[in-house]
Amino acid sequence: MNQKIKDSPIQNSIIGILGGGQLGRMLAIAASRLGYKSHIFDPNINSPASQVSTFSTQASYDNVQALASFAKSVDIVTYEFENIPTDALNIIEKHASIFPSKEALFTSQDRLVEKQFLTSLGLKTAPFQNIENINDLNNALDKIGIPAILKTRRLGYDGKGQVKINDTNNLDKILTQFHNVPCILEGVVNFNMEISIIGARDQFGAVSCYDPGENYHENGILKTTLVPAKINQKTSTDAVLLTGKILNELDYIGVIGVELFVTDNGLLINEIAPRVHNSGHWTQNGCLIDQFEQHIRAIVGLKLGDGKRHSNIEMINILGDDFKKLDKFVKDGKSALHLYGKEDIKVGRKMGHINKIYEF
Amino acid sequence: MNQKIKDSPIQNSIIGILGGGQLGRMLAIAASRLGYKSHIFDPNINSPASQVSTFSTQASYDNVQALASFAKSVDIVTYEFENIPTDALNIIEKHASIFPSKEALFTSQDRLVEKQFLTSLGLKTAPFQNIENINDLNNALDKIGIPAILKTRRLGYDGKGQVKINDTNNLDKILTQFHNVPCILEGVVNFNMEISIIGARDQFGAVSCYDPGENYHENGILKTTLVPAKINQKTSTDAVLLTGKILNELDYIGVIGVELFVTDNGLLINEIAPRVHNSGHWTQNGCLIDQFEQHIRAIVGLKLGDGKRHSNIEMINILGDDFKKLDKFVKDGKSALHLYGKEDIKVGRKMGHINKIYEF
Repeated sequence: MNQKIKDSPIQNSIIGILGGGQLGRMLAIAASRLGYKSHIFDPNINSPASQVSTFSTQASYDNVQALASFAKSVDIVTYEFENIPTDALNIIEKHASIFPSKEALFTSQDRLVEKQFLTSLGLKTAPFQNIENINDLNNALDKIGIPAILKTRRLGYDGKGQVKINDTNNLDKILTQFHNVPCILEGVVNFNMEISIIGARDQFGAVSCYDPGENYHENGILKTTLVPAKINQKTSTDAVLLTGKILNELDYIGVIGVELFVTDNGLLINEIAPRVHNSGHWTQNGCLIDQFEQHIRAIVGLKLGDGKRHSNIEMINILGDDFKKLDKFVKDGKSALHLYGKEDIKVGRKMGHINKIYEF
Repeated sequence: MNQKIKDSPIQNSIIGILGGGQLGRMLAIAASRLGYKSHIFDPNINSPASQVSTFSTQASYDNVQALASFAKSVDIVTYEFENIPTDALNIIEKHASIFPSKEALFTSQDRLVEKQFLTSLGLKTAPFQNIENINDLNNALDKIGIPAILKTRRLGYDGKGQVKINDTNNLDKILTQFHNVPCILEGVVNFNMEISIIGARDQFGAVSCYDPGENYHENGILKTTLVPAKINQKTSTDAVLLTGKILNELDYIGVIGVELFVTDNGLLINEIAPRVHNSGHWTQNGCLIDQFEQHIRAIVGLKLGDGKRHSNIEMINILGDDFKKLDKFVKDGKSALHLYGKEDIKVGRKMGHINKIYEF
């Protein structure tokens, strides 16, 4: 990485961030606290992150010249989402180091590669099968059983790119709806609770995890995270240990989000996200150093900060029209409001979140 | 005030901030958390606040056209420092409401007016006398005694514009050094401790105060604030009550900083600052809602947030060359680092601060 940034937290260094959504915005805010400037790369004008950053480039991810100029102008590059085209990364890395590494990113970009990686570490996931055609799908349904979930291997998020299969009718049609892209079939997991854990690893190899949070979704989108999760100490420690194993194995630098199912037979990994994570937003008001600053510390070569939880928090996403009912949130002095500066309200769109302290 | 902003925390509303230093920067960051955009007005290019704000105007405070354009472009105006020229405020208020009010600002811009206001409320200050010439000074020294402190009535900060008088020699020369501007002479207070308290009042008339902090200075510049201050409950309550009285009397909207001396005879008020205050930076990591967000909430018409302290904090200013020794701060995971993006290091210049959690 750039020596200038590695020596110490030198101001005037610039952190490049791919993606200008709310995660980029909160990364940029955290970077500014540490004295860094941010440069946002995003295809959209007036992105949430560009509003709070010193520099921004509005260009698409296939704009070779814009990507090169962006990479040359910054001291280091990170990203807020995992679906970055490989070609874009190849252009950027000619001029600036990328953290977390491309390898870590590739592992999580493809559900098959991700699950193969996790099982190779001896970690448990839902049963899965690779699906490239209708024969694969029929065979996989025989092995995994019904119901099962068909997911595209790439580009899924917030419940998009997946469908539950309850019977063997119309399987052809389903694959056609998915444009016959590579998929995996996953078994349905009977879980007691969904939790997630946010981990971080710095350039000295130190690993730190925040307390696991308990997640609740609405229509496939995260709605609420509660910390502490109502799990026993053994489960909590298991979550920390498996996250540490993943981070270490990937020689990972930065923050990772690991989604887990709590089952009668222990923890299953649902998926990993090589970035700051919605279910870690509670850390902004629950810890001295939040997930965004922890990520910046890790990638610029600082030591990780203290992630100990000082308060109990309920994080609630403000989705779509919730945004029109903000009054009920801000009338409550126990709630810290975090809005993203998005202009248009859409159904299910993440407009902001609140962190409610519900007990000291 | 602008109805658009008063109705609810509507995004796309713009908060104008006079002054682009570190206080403006941290106000802008807090505003962005609440979904607002900021527009910074500052005479300097690349000011700390402009780096994290959507809009900025670089112009001097006597640039009538720039002030008018700025005021027209925003929904509300606030400020990070009290020494704003009256003419500038007069131009701005034609187009946008200013919070805290001009009246509150004027009270604190002049040490004589400020002390007269405080004593009119029955609150205690150091003994003081108005000084307009050498005769006033001689008479005042007779009344107040030696040593005493001569301060310019206006434009003093961080120990600037004041001199301690230890004898009656060269009094003429001292007044000349102060360019014969209006001054006050203050008695020297024998205090046991200097504390400060950050208060806030919203547009519904509600008042909230943070816990008092214990302050230590170096060369007239704040170096450290400790919370909780080592004072008894009675003193703490006194501090809250007098702050509430000041806020109420001024019909104040926003955050105020009140510097106090703890003496054997109770609390004396040193000075009030109609803005967020260096000695309140600890709230960023000690409370759910920090002083910056509290200020923004108050001025836009939201209710105040919870200012309860959840942790013990030591705030340490990073002054001048301290900035070259940042390693010792960031190696300590218990310290949250806040840097201001200033390019040049100068002796005594506030480059950043850390908030160290020293006990849970």
